[in-house]
Amino acid sequence: MSNAPIDLAEKLSSFTDHWSPKVVARLNDYEIKVVKVQGEFVWHTHDDTDELFLVLDGELTIQLRDGNVALHQGQLFVVPRGVEHCPIAAGEVHAILIEPVGVLNSGGAGGPLTATYDDSLA
Amino acid sequence: MSNAPIDLAEKLSSFTDHWSPKVVARLNDYEIKVVKVQGEFVWHTHDDTDELFLVLDGELTIQLRDGNVALHQGQLFVVPRGVEHCPIAAGEVHAILIEPVGVLNSGGAGGPLTATYDDSLA
Repeated sequence: MSNAPIDLAEKLSSFTDHWSPKVVARLNDYEIKVVKVQGEFVWHTHDDTDELFLVLDGELTIQLRDGNVALHQGQLFVVPRGVEHCPIAAGEVHAILIEPVGVLNSGGAGGPLTATYDDSLA
Repeated sequence: MSNAPIDLAEKLSSFTDHWSPKVVARLNDYEIKVVKVQGEFVWHTHDDTDELFLVLDGELTIQLRDGNVALHQGQLFVVPRGVEHCPIAAGEVHAILIEPVGVLNSGGAGGPLTATYDDSLA
């Protein structure tokens, strides 16, 4: 094992693409990812898992069918399994995602923003 | 479900005790906790789970038997299962902990800093 700390800002400075989560650490069978997003994603659902969003910089809105959740720096939200959602951001947002290993970013919705598999910066 | 964002600073401002993690959100069978720590904890091990520390404010050192990991704001470290560790902080530290539901803060080590069960602010 490495005893080096994982610096989130350093990891985020190492890439520029949007909607492409990068794995920075693993916790049992979960992955901790950092991501940069801007614009609107696609409506999708994860039937088998909750998904955590923690905003590190910027303002991220998670659209839900029954209303929007506006997240600023230092705020988090867990989208429960089975709940359709669509993230949207006017400006660039830096965030942490946490979900089980192997979850596709777009659920089963597909589309051009689907990452085939999340890159690792771990 | 509530569509309210969880504000980490607000949750942290709602208590003052040290070494007493507070649950702020649940992700499947994991709990997201905030904690304030200062001073030295006890050496302990979690045999069945990794444990994630993410520092939000201050400087936290995680002592391991093969060296120390110094974590500043925005840095995280995952202590692998089975690895003995002992957090220590000269000043007050605000941090996030993530681990499966039901994990005791001191592993099996016991001692006066063991929280009988983590309080919930969720």
